[in-house]
Amino acid sequence: MVYCRKARTDAAFRVDDLPGSGGRMDVAARCVQTALWLSNDIRRDTKIYIVLNGPPRPPVTICFDGATLRNVSPDERSIALWIKKYLQHDATKEWAEINPGISVSKSSFQDVVTAISKDHKLFVLHENGADAAPATRDNVAFILGDHIGLPENDEKYCMRFGAEKMSVGPKSYLASHCMIIANNALDRFEARRDCEATL
Amino acid sequence: MVYCRKARTDAAFRVDDLPGSGGRMDVAARCVQTALWLSNDIRRDTKIYIVLNGPPRPPVTICFDGATLRNVSPDERSIALWIKKYLQHDATKEWAEINPGISVSKSSFQDVVTAISKDHKLFVLHENGADAAPATRDNVAFILGDHIGLPENDEKYCMRFGAEKMSVGPKSYLASHCMIIANNALDRFEARRDCEATL
Repeated sequence: MVYCRKARTDAAFRVDDLPGSGGRMDVAARCVQTALWLSNDIRRDTKIYIVLNGPPRPPVTICFDGATLRNVSPDERSIALWIKKYLQHDATKEWAEINPGISVSKSSFQDVVTAISKDHKLFVLHENGADAAPATRDNVAFILGDHIGLPENDEKYCMRFGAEKMSVGPKSYLASHCMIIANNALDRFEARRDCEATL
Repeated sequence: MVYCRKARTDAAFRVDDLPGSGGRMDVAARCVQTALWLSNDIRRDTKIYIVLNGPPRPPVTICFDGATLRNVSPDERSIALWIKKYLQHDATKEWAEINPGISVSKSSFQDVVTAISKDHKLFVLHENGADAAPATRDNVAFILGDHIGLPENDEKYCMRFGAEKMSVGPKSYLASHCMIIANNALDRFEARRDCEATL
């Protein structure tokens, strides 16, 4: 999941100006793409929650579920058009799925953390975390801030649910890039496990 | 460098339809972003060549040089607008730099391979390559196909210059994602080397 501090929570942004009018909605769109897309396929075992906290009525959370997602292209504009369509919907606390694999609700960052922590081990991606991949492929959730980072109280909230800080390398990477490195680490873990299982 | 088989070689594409009218120009734009951007910075030691081979007058190659690049945002649309601007230029075999850090020429894929092989070790990113990071940070060049892959004769051409095939993990990744995983491997190598140098 990605915390987007300034991303708009209505559809009053221009798809041809995602960074400005969308409140860095390009970051949200890119994270959806990097979390879910493979070459010629989608990660069917992966969901991403983008938690939008910009004006006028934060929070709004949109979930893209690789298991059932279809009719979405990986370019930023295409993903942003879906986000915009969902922001025209009057979101409530109940999740509403309008298109297969995309749902929206008024859930806050902390609501989503509470929900996913029930059956996921949480990792907060952070420059000062341990540079180590999770020792499991199953039920792992990565939590990222956008270009500004996670608010301190939200980071602390994650820690209350047993989250660990994890770094993905020695430099400071874009959130969307962190997604790829973290997913790649899980892919390698899974491949090793499958390989060992056949020995 | 990235070989873009169908990306247009004039400016007659719509920035709001990069996948269709641009011949998957979204792939080219994304690769520029993933090759060069860090959080709040650009990789100043990195260049990317995108070799466009679509209609009407292939090839056209555009080089983005992190050392001097400025005034470019990391969203696909912004990068695509620069590509479009450069495709309005009547490219010749000579490199022409119109904006700092972006230059264009009629160089072909093989022209660029010949040039960079003089002072770079070449790695062709390929699913069937060895899953190993280069044992050096310096003067490494990664060569990628787009969503279709490298033409066979161009891949063979790279091999004549000592290129090695390298995989970035057990799945089939988007070209833009490969950039990030490969750069991350180099970052880790460099960090280990710097760490050992201080011991």
